[in-house]
Amino acid sequence: MTYEVFDTLLSPEGRLDILSKAEVQRLLDTSHGGLYQLFRNCALAVLNTGNDTDDAKELLDHYQSFQINIIQRERGIKLELKGAPATAFVDGVMIKGIHEHLFSVLRDILFTHDEILSNPTFDLKSSTGITDSVFHILRNANVLHPHLNPKMVVCWGGHSISRDEYEYTKKVGYQIGLRDLDICTGCGPGAMKGPMKGATIGHAKQRIATGRYLGISEPGIIAAEAPNPIVNDLVIMPDIEKRLEAFVRTGHGIIVFPGGAGTAEEILYILGILLHPDNAEVPFPLIFTGPSGSADYFRQIDHFIGITLGPDAQKLYKIIVDDPEQVALEMQAGIAAVRAYRKSKGDAYYFSWTLKIDQAFQQPFEPTHENMRNLSLHKNQETHLLAANLRRAFSGVVAGNVKESGIRAIEQHGHFEISGDREIMEHMDALLASFVAQSRMKLPGKTYTPCYRIIK
Amino acid sequence: MTYEVFDTLLSPEGRLDILSKAEVQRLLDTSHGGLYQLFRNCALAVLNTGNDTDDAKELLDHYQSFQINIIQRERGIKLELKGAPATAFVDGVMIKGIHEHLFSVLRDILFTHDEILSNPTFDLKSSTGITDSVFHILRNANVLHPHLNPKMVVCWGGHSISRDEYEYTKKVGYQIGLRDLDICTGCGPGAMKGPMKGATIGHAKQRIATGRYLGISEPGIIAAEAPNPIVNDLVIMPDIEKRLEAFVRTGHGIIVFPGGAGTAEEILYILGILLHPDNAEVPFPLIFTGPSGSADYFRQIDHFIGITLGPDAQKLYKIIVDDPEQVALEMQAGIAAVRAYRKSKGDAYYFSWTLKIDQAFQQPFEPTHENMRNLSLHKNQETHLLAANLRRAFSGVVAGNVKESGIRAIEQHGHFEISGDREIMEHMDALLASFVAQSRMKLPGKTYTPCYRIIK
Amino acid sequence: MTYEVFDTLLSPEGRLDILSKAEVQRLLDTSHGGLYQLFRNCALAVLNTGNDTDDAKELLDHYQSFQINIIQRERGIKLELKGAPATAFVDGVMIKGIHEHLFSVLRDILFTHDEILSNPTFDLKSSTGITDSVFHILRNANVLHPHLNPKMVVCWGGHSISRDEYEYTKKVGYQIGLRDLDICTGCGPGAMKGPMKGATIGHAKQRIATGRYLGISEPGIIAAEAPNPIVNDLVIMPDIEKRLEAFVRTGHGIIVFPGGAGTAEEILYILGILLHPDNAEVPFPLIFTGPSGSADYFRQIDHFIGITLGPDAQKLYKIIVDDPEQVALEMQAGIAAVRAYRKSKGDAYYFSWTLKIDQAFQQPFEPTHENMRNLSLHKNQETHLLAANLRRAFSGVVAGNVKESGIRAIEQHGHFEISGDREIMEHMDALLASFVAQSRMKLPGKTYTPCYRIIK
Amino acid sequence: MTYEVFDTLLSPEGRLDILSKAEVQRLLDTSHGGLYQLFRNCALAVLNTGNDTDDAKELLDHYQSFQINIIQRERGIKLELKGAPATAFVDGVMIKGIHEHLFSVLRDILFTHDEILSNPTFDLKSSTGITDSVFHILRNANVLHPHLNPKMVVCWGGHSISRDEYEYTKKVGYQIGLRDLDICTGCGPGAMKGPMKGATIGHAKQRIATGRYLGISEPGIIAAEAPNPIVNDLVIMPDIEKRLEAFVRTGHGIIVFPGGAGTAEEILYILGILLHPDNAEVPFPLIFTGPSGSADYFRQIDHFIGITLGPDAQKLYKIIVDDPEQVALEMQAGIAAVRAYRKSKGDAYYFSWTLKIDQAFQQPFEPTHENMRNLSLHKNQETHLLAANLRRAFSGVVAGNVKESGIRAIEQHGHFEISGDREIMEHMDALLASFVAQSRMKLPGKTYTPCYRIIK
Repeated sequence: MTYEVFDTLLSPEGRLDILSKAEVQRLLDTSHGGLYQLFRNCALAVLNTGNDTDDAKELLDHYQSFQINIIQRERGIKLELKGAPATAFVDGVMIKGIHEHLFSVLRDILFTHDEILSNPTFDLKSSTGITDSVFHILRNANVLHPHLNPKMVVCWGGHSISRDEYEYTKKVGYQIGLRDLDICTGCGPGAMKGPMKGATIGHAKQRIATGRYLGISEPGIIAAEAPNPIVNDLVIMPDIEKRLEAFVRTGHGIIVFPGGAGTAEEILYILGILLHPDNAEVPFPLIFTGPSGSADYFRQIDHFIGITLGPDAQKLYKIIVDDPEQVALEMQAGIAAVRAYRKSKGDAYYFSWTLKIDQAFQQPFEPTHENMRNLSLHKNQETHLLAANLRRAFSGVVAGNVKESGIRAIEQHGHFEISGDREIMEHMDALLASFVAQSRMKLPGKTYTPCYRIIK
Repeated sequence: MTYEVFDTLLSPEGRLDILSKAEVQRLLDTSHGGLYQLFRNCALAVLNTGNDTDDAKELLDHYQSFQINIIQRERGIKLELKGAPATAFVDGVMIKGIHEHLFSVLRDILFTHDEILSNPTFDLKSSTGITDSVFHILRNANVLHPHLNPKMVVCWGGHSISRDEYEYTKKVGYQIGLRDLDICTGCGPGAMKGPMKGATIGHAKQRIATGRYLGISEPGIIAAEAPNPIVNDLVIMPDIEKRLEAFVRTGHGIIVFPGGAGTAEEILYILGILLHPDNAEVPFPLIFTGPSGSADYFRQIDHFIGITLGPDAQKLYKIIVDDPEQVALEMQAGIAAVRAYRKSKGDAYYFSWTLKIDQAFQQPFEPTHENMRNLSLHKNQETHLLAANLRRAFSGVVAGNVKESGIRAIEQHGHFEISGDREIMEHMDALLASFVAQSRMKLPGKTYTPCYRIIK
Repeated sequence: MTYEVFDTLLSPEGRLDILSKAEVQRLLDTSHGGLYQLFRNCALAVLNTGNDTDDAKELLDHYQSFQINIIQRERGIKLELKGAPATAFVDGVMIKGIHEHLFSVLRDILFTHDEILSNPTFDLKSSTGITDSVFHILRNANVLHPHLNPKMVVCWGGHSISRDEYEYTKKVGYQIGLRDLDICTGCGPGAMKGPMKGATIGHAKQRIATGRYLGISEPGIIAAEAPNPIVNDLVIMPDIEKRLEAFVRTGHGIIVFPGGAGTAEEILYILGILLHPDNAEVPFPLIFTGPSGSADYFRQIDHFIGITLGPDAQKLYKIIVDDPEQVALEMQAGIAAVRAYRKSKGDAYYFSWTLKIDQAFQQPFEPTHENMRNLSLHKNQETHLLAANLRRAFSGVVAGNVKESGIRAIEQHGHFEISGDREIMEHMDALLASFVAQSRMKLPGKTYTPCYRIIK
Repeated sequence: MTYEVFDTLLSPEGRLDILSKAEVQRLLDTSHGGLYQLFRNCALAVLNTGNDTDDAKELLDHYQSFQINIIQRERGIKLELKGAPATAFVDGVMIKGIHEHLFSVLRDILFTHDEILSNPTFDLKSSTGITDSVFHILRNANVLHPHLNPKMVVCWGGHSISRDEYEYTKKVGYQIGLRDLDICTGCGPGAMKGPMKGATIGHAKQRIATGRYLGISEPGIIAAEAPNPIVNDLVIMPDIEKRLEAFVRTGHGIIVFPGGAGTAEEILYILGILLHPDNAEVPFPLIFTGPSGSADYFRQIDHFIGITLGPDAQKLYKIIVDDPEQVALEMQAGIAAVRAYRKSKGDAYYFSWTLKIDQAFQQPFEPTHENMRNLSLHKNQETHLLAANLRRAFSGVVAGNVKESGIRAIEQHGHFEISGDREIMEHMDALLASFVAQSRMKLPGKTYTPCYRIIK
């Protein structure tokens, strides 16, 4: 099978058209320490939108001849692309939204490298330093808008969901858009795209030309979950942990739609944070919702949370079945409480400084076979730390499913082995099995082979 | 059954906030010659969007207590509404798109009355005078934009179509929007709404913030086909003939989706015009399209045209089944030809002065029982005049189906009687019967009782 | 002496690019009833900005070969100019402000003719009808902005003033601009230009990009007082009386700088209106101001008002000498009172409907020799009617000085003869003589020959 | 004498409203290494606009109680000012332009410190590193606009000039503005303000709402030359050498008006650069101009250049006396050549990378008594290096005249002593003496006491 490709030359969108000579050099440096490979792969991922693969390795294999180059001109830089996936184009011209995303990738990779990772002022060993780096990346990406009222609704959920669930996410997005709320997602397909489509129609009816569709990704996942072009603010965080922190510090509430291991990871992340004693007073609307056919799914999730994190965790969210308008109204009310709280604390609307995030949720977790094997999955620890470890376990499963490095590791060394308290293991096994049965792990089309084994 | 209603006070959108004292008086004048009743009924129709009725009489009956008032304030006028349909509101606030539509109604009713109908400079007996009045109403509504390239695609088709057909109109709209083309429709539900929704998503992906969704209505039909709020330019023409002329002079090509009697009326209108010898050279892209399930429908329409208007008429359109991208590409190519032709003739991009429209298509046809009975539906006349009379026949059926005056006339006097050449009558009968069978005459929910009888 | 000229082709600015065929025909019609001559002469006047003549006849004589033509193109109309004064161009390209003014002229001449003068709905014999026509011309020119707070300061004063006086008008304009107030003038040189220049700097420092520089002219005076290009809203009213009414209904306060007969006319106009019993409660800030060297000038004016209209009239204005900041502060306070009054009465901020203007100030006065001779200039009448007649007398002097028709009449029939009460005549004579002595009648350069004779 | 002061609380303008906690801390840190003192003094300088002092020390003494504070709020930061000079306010509200300048100061001080001075990536010992830092400061200040054609005209000249000269600079600015060129100056009064005022009027007439008035200052000089509020892009470079480099890399041509020691410094700087062999081919329009009364002044300057740098240097500029339009036309033509050259080299329009600037012009020169005494002012060196040393000599005189540190040094240690080749010294002495005689050293009002002594 061959994949249709195009060559093109792109003028920059936005502020990214002015690079110094040194910056261009760093981007084009193909040596080990250089940024070229990272930049090229993320660019390819962005171009891949609309294609039917969530397999990062497959994508890279398909478009091996893809190249990207930077050219200096009297009016600033241009990007030269060779062998780019044809799906990014309409009649030979790149879709504007994708065009913009390419320059967002450029911006974030450069900034993260030059101003964060190589800069001694950011102490990435400390919790404060990590939060500070998240703040700077977001500010540089121009997604922190101080004059707006809180209205960013984060939508989480699977990239591989049923038609019914997809239509439902659109309806929820529509009700949100009608109420002048914005949408933030992980920016792939499925539950990450539906709410944006719905909100686009809602915003159009309300004549809201400034509707925001914020997508937050990271280099490891972007190839599996290419940003849909409705996303009009794309940010590439350096790793999954900073991506999750970006969600909870810029969002004002979270809606969780059905999903697979990644969604479970996200649920455990936000519950783990909200369970931290310092956050006891912090309001944070959290809603699990789906169409009537998904009622069972949430019952199962709720049960798993009850078993592992207990009833206090279960109080942190509401489950609403098949009622998009109610979801929007609850979210609106929840955000009003967030606004009141921030105002009372002088905490910024655009970035929550007050939310306490434990280092356990901030330090990058590398899902090697050894790290997976050594996860501490038992109840003999504080609940929010158990949440942190469970989060890591699901994060590893996501990597084994769709991330390039994860897939290669599984090919080489076999299953990840996950062990812990018998009760937790049993419910985890059941949950993951149901994800498999419901095709939530990967996009349908191929048979799913689990990348993990639960040791009971 | 009761209908939920709201009261509200609205500030004007756009230029309409400055009225002279005399203008306000004319709008509030409830006397026979006054404009109040017309204004109130159109306003109510606009507010009715999203409700499930296409029965103008029913609508007026449901909201008898609805009132609209104009108040002078130091910053201009305000509209005061009492008893307005609740569906126009989100959490008690009127949807912005509907809010705008109300002021479009105000603008067009006032202008049409003051500057067109009462102004001796417009000779509405002459073809030139009618065209001039259409031009002035459109210019006053600010929908003629001289600096734009031709890109307005008129979409015609039924308000009552199947789910499959509806999804298909969205896909066509999406492909059109991706190519930076705009949409113009009669602004009701069904095939008038789907393309706009699709184009909204296409425009969003291409970052086109200036996408135009032009709706052209008239007081008789608006209650049956309330504008959907995506419409961001609404114009109320004084009658169906001027509305049709507005479509063909401002649009640069037409796509016809499946529909009922109204769609048949539109098809006959455009074919009748293009068949006029003076228009032989004028390029005008005309595409009939639907999903694979609608292939039969277009075969039947095509057959009817062949029987009545002959093979020359059949050469004026293309039928494309189940290929949204191809529809968009054909339309794009067709519009390029329109542009070249207008440029070569110095004809305006925003209003085609060169298209010849015969008086037979311009003079308002009043579908009384007598006028319907006397229609000349035989082949013993020039083809474009037969088209004109067939157009009138279908127009009468539309009125009997959904317009207030038509419904009342049918209630009083029984069926319209339609007679003519036996062959034409037979095919017309078959066509109308198929519309009935396919629920294309009226929105589903009640049994359709035909308002016509074909005399064979 | 030859005058340098250019040819050019202009695309329209603003909404004026869409004309119907009939409208173009009317503009190009050179027959007696046609608009061509009027349009051509006003266009020439607009192009003459920056030239040193205030003699309308001279201007027309210099540029006899000037032609203006309208061309229809696919993107709308274009204006073709031949033999246009070179001063309107910079390096062969017309100054944008002048370019815009040409299209304002087109707009107002067309609208006034088509929609006002030929339209039976406007009864120009009645006071209400005249006010309505003023409203419609201003609305069509898009100068009525309902969402703005009152902030339009009308500046009156001579086109021929001293350097010192000119610098002073700039300083007042600067203080006005710093306070976010706008400027409206008769749009010629001298006191009509200085305040706009000053306000431009004030607005720039306050980052006010929406500063308005409204110029209101009329066909008779425009050739003598060509609009300066800073004017960003130009309106051509059909005659001097409607022009004056436009000033007082759209302005929120008036500053009068030193000037000649025209300024005296304006002062008598506003005093005559404010003296009307119905306006007794209407707040209207009116300030006479100039540099210290002009103190005498205002003493003389004040004296003349005292003699003719009495102490009640003198209470209607403040005289402030050499204090630009104080002028701005007083005006700001005055406008605050206007706002409060309008709000309390529900009167529009953008157009004062409540101000009573007697027919005596509205009916066009034609300064023929006979009409001038018959003016009733004695105290045996209501004060505001004496003001009206004195206004007419000065208006005639202006016509004889600078308007084409007036100059030709004087050439043919000699002096206007002005007679009346001895006391009034004596003071009027002295006042006019002082205008002559101070070069306020005409721009310096030629010796001024009076066009009037006071019969004492 | 007391100075009127105000307290106020300011919301940010532009992007500067989002600071991290760490950034706010650095700005408020009053310890030795902290930024508070620098920030406070520059802020005070900006507020001092319109006051009649060019004595930095005096300014600081007058407003000793002035304080500035940063407050975190839910919508971002606010600035709290206590004891601010009243001249920055109109009716108690700060002039918007000054308000913006305060935040420019904040932005540049923070960025320069955090991202340039503390960041190992910028090697400020190397020529490339210095240029890179200039680029980054300008880019961060958002003054590099890649989509604009070259049109930035740098205007140099004295802050203390005669009324005639000042009016002339306005006329030149007007002609420049009429031609859609922008203005960049050192942003103080006199020749740095006049061209901006003139261009504001020219831009208004041409309806150019995007006219740029770029001011480039540095902490040492800003107190003596407070930015006038017309400046709508203010950048604070860290020292005089980077400020001069910013002028020549962002500007596309330079006009020099009469001035004193600072102007001489600037002339020597640009000549020194253009004399570098590597720049032999680089086009750079350089015009010296003034009213007829300044003809002598330029004769003297020209003579001094001839004596010191020779006839090759004299070929690099044109002297135009009393002809503003000619100045604008020459500049326009010169910039066209710059554009062609940059295009041919692929050099950026917004930042000239190709211009060679020798380290001798880049390394900060500290005008201590010792450094001044040791300047190598003889002909026994390459011409461009002599220019560099002469530049330093005049720079020292400027410091001794108006900069805080310089004034204090002179108070403590007496005159700077300047020695060198006899011929050079004689002409330098004469030139400086004439500056004194013509009141070009300092604003009039006090007797000027020279801060230097020429050792012949």
